[in-house]
Amino acid sequence: MSEQVFQTRYETYRTAVESYLETLFAGSPDWRDLYESMRYSLLAGGKRIRPVLTLEFARLAGLADWKTALPMACALELVHTYSLIHDDLPCMDNDDLRRGKPTNHKVYGETLAVLAGDALQPEAYRLILTAPGLDESRRAACGRILAEVSGADGMVAGQVLDTLHAPKTEAEVTEVHRLKTGAMIAGACRLGVAAAGGSGGLMAAAETYAQELGLAFQIRDDMLDVCGDAAEFGKPIGSDKEEGKVTFMDLLGLEGCGRAVRAHTEAAKAAVADWDTDGILAALADSLAERNK
Amino acid sequence: MSEQVFQTRYETYRTAVESYLETLFAGSPDWRDLYESMRYSLLAGGKRIRPVLTLEFARLAGLADWKTALPMACALELVHTYSLIHDDLPCMDNDDLRRGKPTNHKVYGETLAVLAGDALQPEAYRLILTAPGLDESRRAACGRILAEVSGADGMVAGQVLDTLHAPKTEAEVTEVHRLKTGAMIAGACRLGVAAAGGSGGLMAAAETYAQELGLAFQIRDDMLDVCGDAAEFGKPIGSDKEEGKVTFMDLLGLEGCGRAVRAHTEAAKAAVADWDTDGILAALADSLAERNK
Repeated sequence: MSEQVFQTRYETYRTAVESYLETLFAGSPDWRDLYESMRYSLLAGGKRIRPVLTLEFARLAGLADWKTALPMACALELVHTYSLIHDDLPCMDNDDLRRGKPTNHKVYGETLAVLAGDALQPEAYRLILTAPGLDESRRAACGRILAEVSGADGMVAGQVLDTLHAPKTEAEVTEVHRLKTGAMIAGACRLGVAAAGGSGGLMAAAETYAQELGLAFQIRDDMLDVCGDAAEFGKPIGSDKEEGKVTFMDLLGLEGCGRAVRAHTEAAKAAVADWDTDGILAALADSLAERNK
Repeated sequence: MSEQVFQTRYETYRTAVESYLETLFAGSPDWRDLYESMRYSLLAGGKRIRPVLTLEFARLAGLADWKTALPMACALELVHTYSLIHDDLPCMDNDDLRRGKPTNHKVYGETLAVLAGDALQPEAYRLILTAPGLDESRRAACGRILAEVSGADGMVAGQVLDTLHAPKTEAEVTEVHRLKTGAMIAGACRLGVAAAGGSGGLMAAAETYAQELGLAFQIRDDMLDVCGDAAEFGKPIGSDKEEGKVTFMDLLGLEGCGRAVRAHTEAAKAAVADWDTDGILAALADSLAERNK
């Protein structure tokens, strides 16, 4: 598959996601400040990797129109966004910048930042459970996936380990990222399959693809935090070290990280080789492995 | 109906709710501290009014066994609990005590308190969307109700108005409580009806009953904050005044509050008079109107 087919498909999905998100919380109730704070972080850009994965997996799983999966794709992006807002809070990572812009609490204050994050969660389930063109059974299946990957045995567990347990060994650091990053990427992929009513082989492949992709993504992130360009990367270089976090760079070194990224990327591609008919998933994995931001 | 029938029924429900909640997050994963923090607030007692309402409405709506509605009843209690944990945070009401016990962040620190609250939300949807004995359609309907009442146009909107907008007029104060307290009580009642597959007349009655009950409850709360006994009430007397909040006591005075509590209580009872065959809902409304804690 040509690089251009991948770029075009990715842009089509990404644009549809941005347009869908743009329609959310656009009214002017008495609590418009809440809406504004939610939109500020929701529309702050980012690569939209997760919702793109949902849409491509929905297509591969046979959904007649991939646009039907937009509410599921964007629901997960709402949950991802809440996690970033809360992660940046003073009592968490205490970050002033996110994707080169002031973090939510720097603009709206801590109170509203906590509440904007809090409101994004139920709104995600509302999107899924009112998704047009899906029967109640698929809606419920999608809601279960989102709850499972983002809850007390998923993303939040990873955040607890990362923030409070000072993971040190390779096994511990890997466990953090399996929960904190991998679970949500896996959720994105599985949501696409579930929106199409799929299960079985493709669902299992989606899980493996996502976990391998997630590890490659995180290891690359750790490399960029040391060797990246701050302007391109969108956050200060060396922030992991400053926070005293043990990263894959500490554990594997630069060359070891490079090898690990390639190995996990190949494992991701292999997991979906039978389904990835247009090679989009492989191209996405390759592009993430080589990214500079 | 005799007072004793009400007391017995209430205790039966309340005990079942406590037992159900006791089973949650009881394992010992690597992130056991997260589980402990969640359980600390979840099992801190309280009157369990909301889940009791879910169970009684489920029974009235014709659910064969009211115990089938326990996951829905407790899911709403999880969301209520997360809202209390976050409300107490330093960047919100900054409270040290809740129901006479140290607040979550006083015991576990701010980071874990934020994360425990964050995790309780998806776990609530997980309970609803995996509830045994309910088809996917009822599960999805229940999930929609919870998302609606606790989201950006429900409970969180009320919290934003209360914390950041300094409501002053009776209309503004009433709007805050309709969203912050009323919406969740209405959600509890509607969850019960939805768990039984009900809609229409009883659903509308549940909404009115809950909103009237919620207002009576809040006005009584404002009275107790001025005239109550701290030990019995479980929190310091005069804390509203200290925070500079305009309450129903400021707006209506003590006698006016007493009259308003009685009026809203009667309106609540009238709304469900055709359905409340054992008089449980009426007795509950009366008991809340007369409560000292």
